[in-house]
Amino acid sequence: MKALVTGGAGFIGSTLVDRLLGRGDEVVAYDNFSTGNRQFLADALPNPRFALIEGDVLDGGALAAAMRGADIVFHLAANADVRFGTEHPQKDLDQNTIATFRVLEAMREAGVKRIAYSSTGSIYGDAIVFPTPEDAPFPVQTSLYGASKLAGEALISAYCEGFGFSAWIFRFVSILGERYTHGHVFDFYKSLAADPTHLHVLGNGKQRKSYLYVQDCVDAIFTAIERAEGKTVILNLGANEYCEVNDSIGWITGALGVIPRLTYAGGDRGWIGDSPFIFLDCSRVRRLGWAPKLSIREGILRTLAYLRANPWLLESRK
Amino acid sequence: MKALVTGGAGFIGSTLVDRLLGRGDEVVAYDNFSTGNRQFLADALPNPRFALIEGDVLDGGALAAAMRGADIVFHLAANADVRFGTEHPQKDLDQNTIATFRVLEAMREAGVKRIAYSSTGSIYGDAIVFPTPEDAPFPVQTSLYGASKLAGEALISAYCEGFGFSAWIFRFVSILGERYTHGHVFDFYKSLAADPTHLHVLGNGKQRKSYLYVQDCVDAIFTAIERAEGKTVILNLGANEYCEVNDSIGWITGALGVIPRLTYAGGDRGWIGDSPFIFLDCSRVRRLGWAPKLSIREGILRTLAYLRANPWLLESRK
Repeated sequence: MKALVTGGAGFIGSTLVDRLLGRGDEVVAYDNFSTGNRQFLADALPNPRFALIEGDVLDGGALAAAMRGADIVFHLAANADVRFGTEHPQKDLDQNTIATFRVLEAMREAGVKRIAYSSTGSIYGDAIVFPTPEDAPFPVQTSLYGASKLAGEALISAYCEGFGFSAWIFRFVSILGERYTHGHVFDFYKSLAADPTHLHVLGNGKQRKSYLYVQDCVDAIFTAIERAEGKTVILNLGANEYCEVNDSIGWITGALGVIPRLTYAGGDRGWIGDSPFIFLDCSRVRRLGWAPKLSIREGILRTLAYLRANPWLLESRK
Repeated sequence: MKALVTGGAGFIGSTLVDRLLGRGDEVVAYDNFSTGNRQFLADALPNPRFALIEGDVLDGGALAAAMRGADIVFHLAANADVRFGTEHPQKDLDQNTIATFRVLEAMREAGVKRIAYSSTGSIYGDAIVFPTPEDAPFPVQTSLYGASKLAGEALISAYCEGFGFSAWIFRFVSILGERYTHGHVFDFYKSLAADPTHLHVLGNGKQRKSYLYVQDCVDAIFTAIERAEGKTVILNLGANEYCEVNDSIGWITGALGVIPRLTYAGGDRGWIGDSPFIFLDCSRVRRLGWAPKLSIREGILRTLAYLRANPWLLESRK
């Protein structure tokens, strides 16, 4: 199989690239390095079955050229941080919605008909059913990020109907693990590395969240593509559990051996549009035979260990 | 109240303009006349409380200038024909999704915080619950039009959460009545005017659809804005009934006094992405005290009478 991975130098993208190469696939990574890291492709670059194309997903012509001959596109390029939507609303529109449109049009031009897409549990907004299934009551969007990802899903589904595409749409919880570059473990570790005596927490610390280890995430993607059929296959991807932000703080500070004074910004949300409770019903993907190997706690601890071993990452990020 | 109406020279937009002026409101119509008609504003133009601004909704600067001082934006400008999405996918993206984003950004710039939006029952895709309520199971999009309108809804909802906007999102069935310029009554009448002996029907004629008379639609919009509160108010707008395409053909041919030979393209859908059954649960808006005054049959016959009285409209359209 030949695969094109947009965002192939990113956290999840580069992990997927390595796993695809490990199975014997041909892989083209397409990345503009706005948030990707060349270091993440260190294993892939010497592989003769691998090609890296530096380009922007908004450049439809370059994208179509890059995907010629591919059997499937893994569209992972995105503005992946849910938190800062109101600071630059156009960024989510451009990088998530319009970029997805460009990917779909490039697929039409290049004759590629299969797409796997990284959507998000954020599209459930303030869900009213927990764990939240894929066919939950039609939600109302609460974040620019969720809105822009839902728009991407909608475009993909319409292309499946209109142009005979097949799609796997994955609604991720937050993904953790090696090469993780943003999110609460990153923020907490960076803060504690600078000052182990104090940690400031967004919200009240009682936000309940679900996380998934990146290799488990890739396992699930492979399982779905091999075993789930249909025009548009929509699958939640997460753990069968959730934790409180305060649980995570306990695990992180315990592993670091620090006892910081905790202060809280207050309120039940970490930021505007934050969902105070994310817990997805993943029985649909589990019925395909997949289950995560790591618990949330193990995923968080692996992530922390990775960040400790790679101090350059903390330097390279705001 | 001062209102800005995008698409104010269109079918529904111009009807809304006249009704707002009739209540004593100040109105600015904003239209690029790509499908709008200056004739539809014949009553409005002499009114000192009315202003017409010729401009494109994608021109955010002009839009922001036009809406300065407005209390509410009625965002009706759209690519409103669900049928031709696969012929020009970018049109729905530009005119429905990106245009809605420009409207929202213009509102931020101009300090306007209330928006009413014309969405569509097409966003329910192939619904599985009939009549379909607003909180139906999370649907999968089947048309570029529906996808682009859902993206618009999502953006608006996220702006309500992120920027303190209030929104009324109306999911319309097909709207009928005076100034109607596209849809099946238009197509059937035009075809029968040219050749009363034969009518070719898309699909098998058994598609079940719901329609609403345009003045009933405007009544519902006014009712909702006056009586429904909440950050994002989402309301289906339709009749409490549906009809088959074949029923409509019977009413139209009966009124015209013609007995055409009918041929059918076949299949249960009129076009790619068509929903063979649209029937919305409108109990939410009905609980506000609104009910349609005209039946579907009456709405179709009024529409037909209007088209017969205005032959120039048939000439001006492809």
